Amino acid sequence: MKRFLDYCLRGSGQVMFQNHPICGLLFLVGILAGASLPVALGALLGVAVSTGTALLLRVEREGVEAGLYGYNGLLVGAALPTFLADHPLLWAAVAYGAAVSSVVFMAVANVARTWGTSALTFPFVLVAWTLVLGAQTLSGLPADAASPVPSWPLPPWVEGTLNGVAQVFLVQSPVTGLLFLLGLAVSSAAAATCAVLGSLLAVGVATLFGAEPGVVRAGLFGFSPVLTAIALGSVFYRPSPRVAAFAGLGTLSTVFAQAALDSACRPLHVPTFTAPFILVTWVFLLARADLQPVPHQPQKHEVFGK
Amino acid sequence: MKRFLDYCLRGSGQVMFQNHPICGLLFLVGILAGASLPVALGALLGVAVSTGTALLLRVEREGVEAGLYGYNGLLVGAALPTFLADHPLLWAAVAYGAAVSSVVFMAVANVARTWGTSALTFPFVLVAWTLVLGAQTLSGLPADAASPVPSWPLPPWVEGTLNGVAQVFLVQSPVTGLLFLLGLAVSSAAAATCAVLGSLLAVGVATLFGAEPGVVRAGLFGFSPVLTAIALGSVFYRPSPRVAAFAGLGTLSTVFAQAALDSACRPLHVPTFTAPFILVTWVFLLARADLQPVPHQPQKHEVFGK
Amino acid sequence: MKRFLDYCLRGSGQVMFQNHPICGLLFLVGILAGASLPVALGALLGVAVSTGTALLLRVEREGVEAGLYGYNGLLVGAALPTFLADHPLLWAAVAYGAAVSSVVFMAVANVARTWGTSALTFPFVLVAWTLVLGAQTLSGLPADAASPVPSWPLPPWVEGTLNGVAQVFLVQSPVTGLLFLLGLAVSSAAAATCAVLGSLLAVGVATLFGAEPGVVRAGLFGFSPVLTAIALGSVFYRPSPRVAAFAGLGTLSTVFAQAALDSACRPLHVPTFTAPFILVTWVFLLARADLQPVPHQPQKHEVFGK
Repeated sequence: MKRFLDYCLRGSGQVMFQNHPICGLLFLVGILAGASLPVALGALLGVAVSTGTALLLRVEREGVEAGLYGYNGLLVGAALPTFLADHPLLWAAVAYGAAVSSVVFMAVANVARTWGTSALTFPFVLVAWTLVLGAQTLSGLPADAASPVPSWPLPPWVEGTLNGVAQVFLVQSPVTGLLFLLGLAVSSAAAATCAVLGSLLAVGVATLFGAEPGVVRAGLFGFSPVLTAIALGSVFYRPSPRVAAFAGLGTLSTVFAQAALDSACRPLHVPTFTAPFILVTWVFLLARADLQPVPHQPQKHEVFGK
Repeated sequence: MKRFLDYCLRGSGQVMFQNHPICGLLFLVGILAGASLPVALGALLGVAVSTGTALLLRVEREGVEAGLYGYNGLLVGAALPTFLADHPLLWAAVAYGAAVSSVVFMAVANVARTWGTSALTFPFVLVAWTLVLGAQTLSGLPADAASPVPSWPLPPWVEGTLNGVAQVFLVQSPVTGLLFLLGLAVSSAAAATCAVLGSLLAVGVATLFGAEPGVVRAGLFGFSPVLTAIALGSVFYRPSPRVAAFAGLGTLSTVFAQAALDSACRPLHVPTFTAPFILVTWVFLLARADLQPVPHQPQKHEVFGK
Repeated sequence: MKRFLDYCLRGSGQVMFQNHPICGLLFLVGILAGASLPVALGALLGVAVSTGTALLLRVEREGVEAGLYGYNGLLVGAALPTFLADHPLLWAAVAYGAAVSSVVFMAVANVARTWGTSALTFPFVLVAWTLVLGAQTLSGLPADAASPVPSWPLPPWVEGTLNGVAQVFLVQSPVTGLLFLLGLAVSSAAAATCAVLGSLLAVGVATLFGAEPGVVRAGLFGFSPVLTAIALGSVFYRPSPRVAAFAGLGTLSTVFAQAALDSACRPLHVPTFTAPFILVTWVFLLARADLQPVPHQPQKHEVFGK
């Protein structure tokens, strides 16, 4: 039971690539601080169900222990109550979606491995798109009208930057953003730095190119660039000035990909989720420029006993 | 000529993974019993043209002899007259689509082989989407207004289950569904069982989640789950309780994928064809969970002399 | 500097698979003859920035020297000023898009290599779709209302055929089409022949199937078939009667793919760019029919000293 808890906390940390239970714990605290109750419950249920499903499927143990079978389930569990109304069938969908996310993770990881890369959050996006789109055809899963979140008395660029970090878990709250950054800092100073800079870059570029100010302030241009910056700047390549430039180009690309997928998803009435991050990060990893890649599942920063 | 006929009958059987000419023959009888004349003619023309094209392209002989170059052509030939109006250019499109389906099959099979999996009906879906979408831009291929098929005096869940099997070949008729099940039973009792259970599960889940009753009764939530259930439950994994649970999760996923793709295809005014089956079955095969897979082109159940 | 110019000229030639600087020069002359000033400037800026970015990224030198890091950037540079209004941010987008096209090229080429095939113009399409779609969400990049180009006093099928060749570089002008054919002929008589026949076939098939005459005359059904015909008929397979038939089927397929993608892209308000060519050519290359393929980056026809 204590070990299962450890897997789940690492699963929470893996949403931002951190195989670190205290980091994962701080992420959960951040969710509880800023999300609605159904979203927080969904996240907890999701990480537990997807990790448990992996154990039932007898997948390779190292992956489960590193939290790799938890992060997609957690995001499915946070996303569905954000976009669908609270209803008994919603919770059936959350449990189903989290369970199947472990199967999808195996499939995507097997294919991604062909080119030495990772599944990223693609299993989450695939499952969440399926259920949110499916809900439009199934009247038993009604959509939820999102209630607007009031702004904080902060400069818009500060609020946008912190919200960008918080939106990685679909939460809009600067306090949550700060807690997420604290969690990252406990695990990796480089990752925390990349997250702040990625979110800040997204706010700047989106503003320069005329994105809607309210959307930028809500952090909705930032969550994918935050993930790209962490992935390219601190996880998959060894930090260096060349890598910083390459990660900067990738982060910039993620802002444009966010704008493009916002346009493409609009006729379908679905959010982009983290698809912009996945698309750009895959391209920048597959490019395999001569930038001294490091092994893609870094085992550093493990401080918790198993 | 007799051998060519054998290839075509096996091609018909391969629509539901059966390399068995009598099964294929019963499938054709089922089409003739329930489909309109253009659809039945299209199916016959399609399987013959795509098999003949494969011979002209001098592809590996085993594939042709197993009917692998026939099933996509047959489905293209059944699908186009279902969605496009009867017109000389329609028949040119059927002949072209069936011929090119053999090229697409080679391409998809080559890529799928990379991960030890199969082309499934993706060549059919790709060609049919191209021509049905293309027809919206080409006034020489007008769309056909689908005429509603009257219901039978059967309980809705029985009719939905049988129609779900029949819709694998785009036919809406419980009699056709029964003939298809008979054909399956001749070739493989396990496949017939999976087909019935898959269609029944689809009717139940779609109804529970509030799908439109008329659509469920027409079998339009069932044809993809039928194929997923056969593929995962009886073809690609050796039947066992664990495999049954895994195939059940896959079949359930196909119902949600059907709902999702219905929503996604609506703005484009195209049907999903068997895309939900392909998507889910690929994911569940690529996951390669520890479930003792069997070789993916099983050569069992061949009773016809060549 | 002189070597950099050579790389860029070869990059221009590679838009139609010609590793030949004089051919590339004639392509640039054709652009200057028929395109608006922003499009011509964008093309020049694009090829220079993407080639320069490749040098900065220290990619394998042979690719840069063959112009492989220039053709996508050139097309991005021609496409953006065609669809977006002239504005300082447009030029930032052109420079960014051309630079990132070299990263995308590396990624796509790495994946395509798995099956022994090429990136084709997919990097261009991916980057151009991202920025044109993104511009719908970013008010700083307003769309440009395309001004209609007047017809020439030519028979419609002649004008459509020549415009189809010219539209490979997004130009609508029969003179440009002639200059492009001249450039091709300097490099490869087979390629020039395939280009004319591919464009002619597209005009004929599109007209037969009832495509809008003005669109056919503008060459908008021809540019992808031209590229497919060159690729399948003269570059990737050794010319022979069997290859001619296979390339003909591919070229025909590209016309239907163009119609289909026109329909699919309409709700998103984006052009197809060369996606029909890419889709069909990949399928026909992956099919790897027994047609004696030649190495996929032919180094023949290099007449310019380095």
